[in-house]
Amino acid sequence: MAEKYTVGIDFGTLSGRAVVVRVSDGLELASSEYLYPHAVMEKSLPDGTVLGPEYALQHPLDYLGVFQHAVPDALRSSGVSAADVVGIGIDFTACTVLPTQGDGTPLCLLPEYAGRPHAWVKLWKHHAAQGQADRINALAHSRREPWIARYGGKISSEWAFPKALEVLEQDPEIFHRASKWIEAADWAVWQLCGVETRNPCTAGYKEMYQDGKYPSSEYLKALNPEFDQILEKLGHTLSPLGSRAGGLTPEAAGWTGLLEGTAVAVGNVDAHVTAPAANATAAGQMVLIMGTSTCHIMSGESLEEVPGMCGVVDGGITPGLYGYEAGQSGVGDLFGWMVNHATPPEYHARAQEQGVSVHQILTEDASRQAIGEHGLMALDWLGGNRSVLVNAELSGVFVGLTLATRAPDLYRALLESTAFGTRTILEAFEASGVPVNELIVAGGLMKNPLLMQIYADVTGRELSLVASHQGGALGSAIFAAVAADQYPDITEAARAMGKNHKAVYKPILENQKAYDRLYAEYKRLHDYFGRGANEVMKRLKAMRAEVLLERGAVSD
Amino acid sequence: MAEKYTVGIDFGTLSGRAVVVRVSDGLELASSEYLYPHAVMEKSLPDGTVLGPEYALQHPLDYLGVFQHAVPDALRSSGVSAADVVGIGIDFTACTVLPTQGDGTPLCLLPEYAGRPHAWVKLWKHHAAQGQADRINALAHSRREPWIARYGGKISSEWAFPKALEVLEQDPEIFHRASKWIEAADWAVWQLCGVETRNPCTAGYKEMYQDGKYPSSEYLKALNPEFDQILEKLGHTLSPLGSRAGGLTPEAAGWTGLLEGTAVAVGNVDAHVTAPAANATAAGQMVLIMGTSTCHIMSGESLEEVPGMCGVVDGGITPGLYGYEAGQSGVGDLFGWMVNHATPPEYHARAQEQGVSVHQILTEDASRQAIGEHGLMALDWLGGNRSVLVNAELSGVFVGLTLATRAPDLYRALLESTAFGTRTILEAFEASGVPVNELIVAGGLMKNPLLMQIYADVTGRELSLVASHQGGALGSAIFAAVAADQYPDITEAARAMGKNHKAVYKPILENQKAYDRLYAEYKRLHDYFGRGANEVMKRLKAMRAEVLLERGAVSD
Repeated sequence: MAEKYTVGIDFGTLSGRAVVVRVSDGLELASSEYLYPHAVMEKSLPDGTVLGPEYALQHPLDYLGVFQHAVPDALRSSGVSAADVVGIGIDFTACTVLPTQGDGTPLCLLPEYAGRPHAWVKLWKHHAAQGQADRINALAHSRREPWIARYGGKISSEWAFPKALEVLEQDPEIFHRASKWIEAADWAVWQLCGVETRNPCTAGYKEMYQDGKYPSSEYLKALNPEFDQILEKLGHTLSPLGSRAGGLTPEAAGWTGLLEGTAVAVGNVDAHVTAPAANATAAGQMVLIMGTSTCHIMSGESLEEVPGMCGVVDGGITPGLYGYEAGQSGVGDLFGWMVNHATPPEYHARAQEQGVSVHQILTEDASRQAIGEHGLMALDWLGGNRSVLVNAELSGVFVGLTLATRAPDLYRALLESTAFGTRTILEAFEASGVPVNELIVAGGLMKNPLLMQIYADVTGRELSLVASHQGGALGSAIFAAVAADQYPDITEAARAMGKNHKAVYKPILENQKAYDRLYAEYKRLHDYFGRGANEVMKRLKAMRAEVLLERGAVSD
Repeated sequence: MAEKYTVGIDFGTLSGRAVVVRVSDGLELASSEYLYPHAVMEKSLPDGTVLGPEYALQHPLDYLGVFQHAVPDALRSSGVSAADVVGIGIDFTACTVLPTQGDGTPLCLLPEYAGRPHAWVKLWKHHAAQGQADRINALAHSRREPWIARYGGKISSEWAFPKALEVLEQDPEIFHRASKWIEAADWAVWQLCGVETRNPCTAGYKEMYQDGKYPSSEYLKALNPEFDQILEKLGHTLSPLGSRAGGLTPEAAGWTGLLEGTAVAVGNVDAHVTAPAANATAAGQMVLIMGTSTCHIMSGESLEEVPGMCGVVDGGITPGLYGYEAGQSGVGDLFGWMVNHATPPEYHARAQEQGVSVHQILTEDASRQAIGEHGLMALDWLGGNRSVLVNAELSGVFVGLTLATRAPDLYRALLESTAFGTRTILEAFEASGVPVNELIVAGGLMKNPLLMQIYADVTGRELSLVASHQGGALGSAIFAAVAADQYPDITEAARAMGKNHKAVYKPILENQKAYDRLYAEYKRLHDYFGRGANEVMKRLKAMRAEVLLERGAVSD
């Protein structure tokens, strides 16, 4: 029997990447990346309209460019015939969301709305709806809305409802004109197959869809008398992950070079599709996607309320299991901050001489240290704390500085602090009755052996590593294979097509003991600064905000 | 009547500086610096003998070189005739101390002892006697020795008794051979006038001389059965500050170019002579000598126990008043650490382009910020805490770090943290019944206007600045004028010869209010980390010490 193939597409923040994958074993034959021409619009729209602070918008036609360029390019490189490609699947950043007409036409593409910021795609990192998010959270707690506990007690300004409320309140005409308020993942699938579907992953994690429903009309009206209209704009029927949304339209077949009618899988989220790519879809297999931030993805058998998780969604990762997500808002970002903003010239000079990165120089120096040698303890909250404290007002700490402290000391303390943060998350899951049986690491940071060994030692667990360097796109290709009926379910498909290298890093007993001592210090500072004993971080941020506001007012 | 002149000499860590001063008004006519040829011996003796860790020794003949070179050079430059020079006075680093024969010959100059480290001058920053200091403190507390409270409850390993006990226990032959255990200040005066004197400043601050006596024989024997012999080696008659030790010997007249018989003042300590140089000898006039560290010097009317001061000594600064000293172990050192070890290349490049120091670049950027804008709080303990916590095991902290934190933010937070440290000291004095009426700043850091304004705003007080840039040498010249009977007392001499610019910096009410908010945060963190609620700093340092010890053991 001839080999079959699927195409997986990972829509990232700045580009989309397509990969052609063999269905029988997940072999990645070829890939191609397409950079979005408009990238992220933070300052102005294409027509020159100036954007406010904290804006991050995108152009929907850039996404179609991925279909038009990256897919045919990858197909060509793979040497695979379109006739042997049985399915296509995508994953997307989330919550990346847009208003459309009833037929799916983005409002920003209507000439009359080209200059209206709220008509455009709001990228996941659009942060201008914090005020709306604050009200959504406050009201949910005061009304004791049952869904709020599923999100660790707090929803993010990045999600769909704050962004939609922002549109209603900033540009009501756009809100009312929008027949649909749709995730970019679902919109892109719609463009491929001509059928509107809604996926349970974004609905659950980003749109507060729980127990078969969105937040109630009463609750939404209490936020704003017209806000219950959002319910009409959202899709109420969700299609299981891995199901077939439809077949490629003639137009999409033309873009991609694939055959009309090729199965299109329901959309999904970038982090979540990494689980099958790592063959880690069973309950208790936690996938850590470690990059600028870390996303912790794991299915569980039962529905539990884990304090400080990002969300738990029925079938959110694998149909039939509860999908849990937790996160650390700053991980690689912290190491990048250290390199760019707190490392003196001598290390940069050494890196340049040796033709390596400053990260590598600092890692080498830090590797030579014994545990505890730097005498430091850091709190990894430079980007706030997502799990388990769910508090963006927290900030980073260094304790133990002396005149002998050097950049590799600070760097290593930051590496360790993120490992302590992960251990805190693992302990929260286990304490809540959600066992974590295995850790599988994906993402760019898995290439740092010092960091990996620290994680193994701090958590006292073996670390497996995902085998693919394009976990997202491979994961989407696996969902495509299920949508194309090549496998009965995700777990079977993942078993054949996903892969991880088992126990690449193992904890070293002596190191574990040393880190247990340091973790006790982390925990104590974590609780002191994070659980209300001293809200100095909140007060410092408030003072900073006051000052900046005043300065803005003065300069106006 | 012809003008008269005195010569003041400031013996620093690496050099001695002589200045020729007009007695009538303190005008500094000329100065000259002499670098010690042996500088600080930290690795080996002149004969190649290798020194242990934490050693810092000096060569006594280097001090005579200052008399032989800097004094005649300054005299020549001043155009003053030796006949018009009526006195010479010196101040010295302390506790810098040496063992000598009965005639004052340093043991290190005897050929048989040239290779014996303990025969040499122990510089103030010789830190190899920490073990002895720990025992001295522990025993003083367990025996409830009354003098320990006069030193904030803790004496330093830098002082005379720990260093002498180290000699007794490491090289008893040297200890027993030494007829004298003498401060370098007093030894240098002896070389000038041939008369051994002991000054009450070093005796009080560095040799625990209180209420007319040193620690008791019983106490000293309990430390080591032979250690009471130190009492014979110390001078038991103290000569008041500003009194005449003797007249220049023919030999010293030959070195200096001054006339035989010229009045030589009793020795003194560098920080303490700055008070008359600043015309700040009255009770309540606090002089802050701000350099790598800060020394706070002030006289008071009554004897009070101020928690965490370095010492209180009857007549320790001005005869007839109680001289108080407090200190911050790291101030300029912290800013230097920031520049050298935590500032990225772009600031170094800007400094180079503009031909200014990195300090200046960071200060410029930090100056543009409003108070609270950086969102940070630091604890200024990178060099431990001297006053008021008296704990070398404390370490530095940054709270409030974000991905937006930049080097000028950290720099400004460090500047502010040292100001908060000074405010803590002022509050301790006032709470103990020792009023602080005026702040006068001396030392290199007075040249940073941002730092000065921060100190004014944080303390809510006007800052006066010492008028001389050579406060130490000028102060010694003032004591010389008193010793030469040109003035009836130090206060009169200081009034004529010392000078400060009044209220150069004034607190700005709005800034004071903003800093009151931040100081409350500092205080809270200060007490949390510094008063036992969380001894994480001590534990981190202990773990670091364990690791380094183990590593040393392994590499041996």
